[in-house]
Amino acid sequence: MAILEAKQNVVKQLQDLRGLNDELNPAFVLQKPLNVSFEDRPIPTLSLGSTDVIVQIMQTGICGSDVHYYNHGSIGKFIVKSPMILGHESSGVVAAVGSACKNLHVGDRVALEPGVPCRQCSACKGGKYNICPSMVFAATPPFDGTLCKYYKIAEDFCYKLPPHISFEEGALIEPLSVAVHICRQASIVPGNSVVVFGAGPVGILCCAVARAFGAKTIVSVDLVQSRLAFARDFYGATHTHLAGSTTSSVETAAQLINDAHLRDGADVVIEASGAASSVQTGIHVLRSGGRYVQGGMGKYDITFPIGAIIEKELDIKGSFRYGSGDYLLAISLLESRQIDMKRLITGRYKFHDAERAFKDVYSGKPGLVKVVIEGPEGKCVSEF
Amino acid sequence: MAILEAKQNVVKQLQDLRGLNDELNPAFVLQKPLNVSFEDRPIPTLSLGSTDVIVQIMQTGICGSDVHYYNHGSIGKFIVKSPMILGHESSGVVAAVGSACKNLHVGDRVALEPGVPCRQCSACKGGKYNICPSMVFAATPPFDGTLCKYYKIAEDFCYKLPPHISFEEGALIEPLSVAVHICRQASIVPGNSVVVFGAGPVGILCCAVARAFGAKTIVSVDLVQSRLAFARDFYGATHTHLAGSTTSSVETAAQLINDAHLRDGADVVIEASGAASSVQTGIHVLRSGGRYVQGGMGKYDITFPIGAIIEKELDIKGSFRYGSGDYLLAISLLESRQIDMKRLITGRYKFHDAERAFKDVYSGKPGLVKVVIEGPEGKCVSEF
Amino acid sequence: MAILEAKQNVVKQLQDLRGLNDELNPAFVLQKPLNVSFEDRPIPTLSLGSTDVIVQIMQTGICGSDVHYYNHGSIGKFIVKSPMILGHESSGVVAAVGSACKNLHVGDRVALEPGVPCRQCSACKGGKYNICPSMVFAATPPFDGTLCKYYKIAEDFCYKLPPHISFEEGALIEPLSVAVHICRQASIVPGNSVVVFGAGPVGILCCAVARAFGAKTIVSVDLVQSRLAFARDFYGATHTHLAGSTTSSVETAAQLINDAHLRDGADVVIEASGAASSVQTGIHVLRSGGRYVQGGMGKYDITFPIGAIIEKELDIKGSFRYGSGDYLLAISLLESRQIDMKRLITGRYKFHDAERAFKDVYSGKPGLVKVVIEGPEGKCVSEF
Amino acid sequence: MAILEAKQNVVKQLQDLRGLNDELNPAFVLQKPLNVSFEDRPIPTLSLGSTDVIVQIMQTGICGSDVHYYNHGSIGKFIVKSPMILGHESSGVVAAVGSACKNLHVGDRVALEPGVPCRQCSACKGGKYNICPSMVFAATPPFDGTLCKYYKIAEDFCYKLPPHISFEEGALIEPLSVAVHICRQASIVPGNSVVVFGAGPVGILCCAVARAFGAKTIVSVDLVQSRLAFARDFYGATHTHLAGSTTSSVETAAQLINDAHLRDGADVVIEASGAASSVQTGIHVLRSGGRYVQGGMGKYDITFPIGAIIEKELDIKGSFRYGSGDYLLAISLLESRQIDMKRLITGRYKFHDAERAFKDVYSGKPGLVKVVIEGPEGKCVSEF
Repeated sequence: MAILEAKQNVVKQLQDLRGLNDELNPAFVLQKPLNVSFEDRPIPTLSLGSTDVIVQIMQTGICGSDVHYYNHGSIGKFIVKSPMILGHESSGVVAAVGSACKNLHVGDRVALEPGVPCRQCSACKGGKYNICPSMVFAATPPFDGTLCKYYKIAEDFCYKLPPHISFEEGALIEPLSVAVHICRQASIVPGNSVVVFGAGPVGILCCAVARAFGAKTIVSVDLVQSRLAFARDFYGATHTHLAGSTTSSVETAAQLINDAHLRDGADVVIEASGAASSVQTGIHVLRSGGRYVQGGMGKYDITFPIGAIIEKELDIKGSFRYGSGDYLLAISLLESRQIDMKRLITGRYKFHDAERAFKDVYSGKPGLVKVVIEGPEGKCVSEF
Repeated sequence: MAILEAKQNVVKQLQDLRGLNDELNPAFVLQKPLNVSFEDRPIPTLSLGSTDVIVQIMQTGICGSDVHYYNHGSIGKFIVKSPMILGHESSGVVAAVGSACKNLHVGDRVALEPGVPCRQCSACKGGKYNICPSMVFAATPPFDGTLCKYYKIAEDFCYKLPPHISFEEGALIEPLSVAVHICRQASIVPGNSVVVFGAGPVGILCCAVARAFGAKTIVSVDLVQSRLAFARDFYGATHTHLAGSTTSSVETAAQLINDAHLRDGADVVIEASGAASSVQTGIHVLRSGGRYVQGGMGKYDITFPIGAIIEKELDIKGSFRYGSGDYLLAISLLESRQIDMKRLITGRYKFHDAERAFKDVYSGKPGLVKVVIEGPEGKCVSEF
Repeated sequence: MAILEAKQNVVKQLQDLRGLNDELNPAFVLQKPLNVSFEDRPIPTLSLGSTDVIVQIMQTGICGSDVHYYNHGSIGKFIVKSPMILGHESSGVVAAVGSACKNLHVGDRVALEPGVPCRQCSACKGGKYNICPSMVFAATPPFDGTLCKYYKIAEDFCYKLPPHISFEEGALIEPLSVAVHICRQASIVPGNSVVVFGAGPVGILCCAVARAFGAKTIVSVDLVQSRLAFARDFYGATHTHLAGSTTSSVETAAQLINDAHLRDGADVVIEASGAASSVQTGIHVLRSGGRYVQGGMGKYDITFPIGAIIEKELDIKGSFRYGSGDYLLAISLLESRQIDMKRLITGRYKFHDAERAFKDVYSGKPGLVKVVIEGPEGKCVSEF
Repeated sequence: MAILEAKQNVVKQLQDLRGLNDELNPAFVLQKPLNVSFEDRPIPTLSLGSTDVIVQIMQTGICGSDVHYYNHGSIGKFIVKSPMILGHESSGVVAAVGSACKNLHVGDRVALEPGVPCRQCSACKGGKYNICPSMVFAATPPFDGTLCKYYKIAEDFCYKLPPHISFEEGALIEPLSVAVHICRQASIVPGNSVVVFGAGPVGILCCAVARAFGAKTIVSVDLVQSRLAFARDFYGATHTHLAGSTTSSVETAAQLINDAHLRDGADVVIEASGAASSVQTGIHVLRSGGRYVQGGMGKYDITFPIGAIIEKELDIKGSFRYGSGDYLLAISLLESRQIDMKRLITGRYKFHDAERAFKDVYSGKPGLVKVVIEGPEGKCVSEF
């Protein structure tokens, strides 16, 4: 475009966004470990690219990684060096659209896929944008998260919510997409037997997604009986197994195989706890030629039965966040009511209570499975 | 960026490009079928995006599709409705870079991948950008081609040429990438037997790439003996087969299988001629469980032995242009001298002789395999 | 084993089988087209290999191929040259087991996978035994079928029926396995849109299996409205499309895409009718990058839009019978009640009425979807 | 077959084998660790199945597993409980064929694939017979090996040697097939960068096979400089890296990546040493999305950077022996002279010197890469 046109475009954009400019953008900011505060941040109107949108956040789920940053200020190589807005599991309403946006309009109800890749590297072009080294991911240092009023994101990383899907459910499309990606990495096909270690939110969702993928036998494994009960009630697990701590991983595996009638072992193991003992038991639970996906983040270096990988010619994969098509499938599973997400939400907090929400999750308040925080108060843009 | 910064950026960009603005951008333009002319087109400086570059074109190969547009003004649903610059197989020198370019600098010698996808659709995000419905492809209406002096393209669709690869060879990375994509679609693995129908440039390159992929037996099939001789000399084909026109496709297939000692049939068939008889023979040449890739464009609707697809449980794929990683692999094959591209070039023309080049190819001038046209004369930017 | 042992083994085997030797083995035999009769055939005790079993047949479904042999005496290259017992969709009771059988015992209720491959060729060793060139397949010339009292088959091609699965349902595991194999060839994954051409038994089962595989949108296409109604009631199809005969395949495809809200086209097309117009429409219904599986047998050579394969870079596969794991998955789908097979059976005949059953199917008696024939009367071996 | 025929068959078989019955079958037998002796074993004529052959062994390579049994009497769960003939890498001449053999004749020169699976389990039918739980594998307890004069094996597990391939080379098709299987598990495609840990025979062959698969950069890593020199001379490795013991695996990986110009890391890592430090370094050497294959057997439980599997979304596979198509491809690579097997053989021993051969390998006699032992003396059957 010529200079004149460029100038005119910017002026028009500003006019379009004028209403927003008078508003504030309250944000929930991690200053340093265990130290959070509310700040007013600029509304990202001026940096709005032609294919970006601004979303007014309505609901945000709290993820284990959020709590880990809140508590420790870092996860592995990602270290919070300057104040960072927390949160990345969000839904909201489109408040402004860039000049070249085609599919979204102000007022659309959307779920946010909170990581935008570079679109230019070989990972992006090769269909694995989740491992793009230049990913801009919400609430992963140095990038701010979504626990604020207005969040800027690429149009194509927002997904319209079907009418009957609430904002709460929309926020939790993020962890559901994590589970979808794990189950895809595991190549679960109808008839498979699947053992899922860990009955936290992601583990529970993996059980439910595995069932939607046609798995026949789904065993949820955890150290806590009440979690197993939840996993079974959530309509995912067909069997549960209470893991003890006194037996060896080989013995635990043998017992699990026997209890769940897995014959020669499981077709698929999903590790969603991060515990070293689960990893070890998981490997021993597999049949020859079985598939294993590591989803849970725990200790970086652990003791691992590498010999079993050869003897049983196993296939081991990591699963990192989510990628091409995962959000769409997650929404499809919600839309067809194969996943009853509402039952997962056991805690609801107002924006000004965000710190209490983090403390409750961090302290393991009994009965909490998944927690959501409402967006900052104030009229929703779509109501203007 | 704020408005002020935006304005300053545009001004700076203009200053950077000042030298170019004084130049002309001669272009070879198809007005209507068989009617071409030279035009001076604006240098695309003002539309240069922050991640775009401008390349001064040094060499351009002529492709069958160029000649088809020249002759008929359309290919299938693609119809030339307004004057269009021809050409899309090009190499050149970077003449200007956008403000956010990281890897390329003015003066870099590059090959151009002449189709830039939208990067936002499910095809792009899923690793198959070659079937992006919003692709901007050179010399495919309504988009201008590369037979000009200055061509604008996304930085990441330019590939640095290794020092010992000439501009001529660099231009032909495009058809080599077509062959690479075909061989990848065919999942050729070491030890395979491969039959390639058609010994034009793409067919010949398919033979050579199949050999680089480890194929053991490679049969080149054509109606013209001299082309077969070329295919064999080019170090690709291990066998050749002169197709006749008097026998049925079933008989031809049986004879081919016998002549090349293919036992139960070929593992892989590549169709690079577009002829219906080749398609039919190709299907009959395959063993049970074999793989077939259609690369040649011919008649849209043909008679096809669909029954064989079931009986032999065949796997049939189309191959459209090239995608993720194809250019890099093509360059790697050139760099390691597994493909001797120079031998393919049998015609060289100056820019002002472009029409004669098209006429020679169109009329099937004897001995022509692959033709390249030099870029417009004048000092190269990198020599300033 | 030494000679002595060998001799002893054979003698013991004979003793074990003595009871059977006094019985007859009535069989329903195709003499020539439209000419069938009942014969008494020898019980295959003497040829019983150590890993074979003899099954007393309880129920046999009639397949389109049976009727085709009955009517024409041949299918493609398979020609009935001498009298052949018809039938290959069977369930029954194990009547005798070879000396090395491990998993089955006399009296076990089983479904028969009626094709036993050579186990030695590259197809067998490579996991695609369904295309073994030395396959011994029931009721495919020159091999006799299962419409008799006692049928000999390899132990590992018999599958124990779960207690609540009836013999009728057990017989129809065969066509269900055909549908499972087709859906696997199509790589159907959750969220996919699938269009199935043909609403005969296999097409209907494909719809149901596609749903079990997690397909979101399933469109059943047929020329007959009552079949479509059945396909929808059977809990498979989410949409139906009545195909007309007056429009072009391109127009039909466009209308189908529009009616079923398929946006850019279907992810998957399954052709289960064999009609050329369905093949053509099917190709045009696919989105770019879509997958097509040919399951229906019709004319061997048809007009085919090969150009679309390139432009949309399609993936086309044949599907031939069933192979590794298909029977197990089919049984699993029945066991979990994801497929309600009983509803498919609309005709039941006694063994002595077998010819009438063939005539009713052949003449297209209204309301017939799937027909089963009871095994010959007489005490079941397991009742001794 | 009827009883009479059965009897006649056995008698005829005995007559055919009469010549052999007068001979002895000398064998090299492991009595207990470090205790070997020569025994005369019965020639396996009487147990010859109709699809079996007897091979007169001409050459046998010594494998690390043979030496491990010789030294320790066990490998993992495989324990030598009664005297066992050693050896499993063999070639020879067909000495007798079963009544139903079709492809082999007495006198044929063959390589032996020394593991015969059950052909009936889901692994066998699914194309992964190498993980058949009922595999009969030479020199894996309780099954005898091939260091004898006459060895019985299924006809389809013998492969005719091309005329110019010697018996020595033929014996080493076994370790070459191990390397082929590893490279296939790694899905090596043209242009890949591959790092191979361990420069013993299998590691060296992996480098050579990776090159035949089109890998561009191949780095051989070992602790011993002379082995690296061999790996490079053998025409496989393009780079070598001398691993030290003083740095961390992360540092070693960084240096290796830098030295071999691997940019973001290797596409593929093959671990063929079994050392824990190699495993760890291997994981850190991979790029995001890279593929790792564990081929080397070492300690069963090791410290493993599981965190990297998630962060880089790696794909880890074991490789166990060889399976469908591996022998054929190995022979094809030998036949086309892409692998110069003769250079690998650095030690040749007579049968009566077998123990010395084991001692030399066990003690790490300088200069030994691969050792072969001639079959027992005496006229070759094919010379009769």
